[in-house]
Amino acid sequence: MTAPPRFAQRGTQDEIESGLRFQPKFDADGLIPAIVTEAASGEVLMFAWMDAQALAMTLNTRIGHFFSRSRGTLWKKGEESGNVLRVSEMRIDCDQDVLWLKVVVNGDGVACHTGARSCFYRTLALGSAALPDVPLSHA
Amino acid sequence: MTAPPRFAQRGTQDEIESGLRFQPKFDADGLIPAIVTEAASGEVLMFAWMDAQALAMTLNTRIGHFFSRSRGTLWKKGEESGNVLRVSEMRIDCDQDVLWLKVVVNGDGVACHTGARSCFYRTLALGSAALPDVPLSHA
Repeated sequence: MTAPPRFAQRGTQDEIESGLRFQPKFDADGLIPAIVTEAASGEVLMFAWMDAQALAMTLNTRIGHFFSRSRGTLWKKGEESGNVLRVSEMRIDCDQDVLWLKVVVNGDGVACHTGARSCFYRTLALGSAALPDVPLSHA
Repeated sequence: MTAPPRFAQRGTQDEIESGLRFQPKFDADGLIPAIVTEAASGEVLMFAWMDAQALAMTLNTRIGHFFSRSRGTLWKKGEESGNVLRVSEMRIDCDQDVLWLKVVVNGDGVACHTGARSCFYRTLALGSAALPDVPLSHA
């Protein structure tokens, strides 16, 4: 494996927030969080982490790559299932420490390993007097 | 301050993924990530972290509370600006370690401290040969 790409160094707060130069912040483990939404519906499909290599591969190939924290390796989402994520747009937040990917899910459109389209298939009861035992419902 | 609520203990993988009992996983710092989208548009507005107290207050009040990692304290989003987040729906992911909040932003509808409606106001150039220097554009 070649060395992971070195993205631009972090600049001043003004450069980070107002600049047009990508200066991503990786955490102590070298990871940056990535929110994945379905381009057409806007639904949140999943949440995962990227290291510099996964980020570079995603930018280069426009296919979602992540870092699997459980396996400790690069993870091309959908490599086995065929449900790869084609990235139509990618955004960075004000602090440049969170990514947002808008994607089209290939194959049968399932993004979650449970077989659900989205990982977020359950809603929480709000305003519950039952805290801390919060009932869930199927979304 | 009273002790933070103790949510249900983590169960088996099957209980966590298929059950209807909320068993949130907090990380080593006692935090769980929260994705915030605008209920009407589906746009991702911001990303923040909650500790057990912030999560309980959000569930109880239906107003977005978070844990400020920089200040190390509870953070009622919009307390000063008036742009509090009214939560219309809250979801948990398959692993029960990420939250998704659909919100209505009060006041002038601005969610980002920079004055932008969303923190994600810049897009990355995709498929760029310019890696690792990635140009950003205003969304």
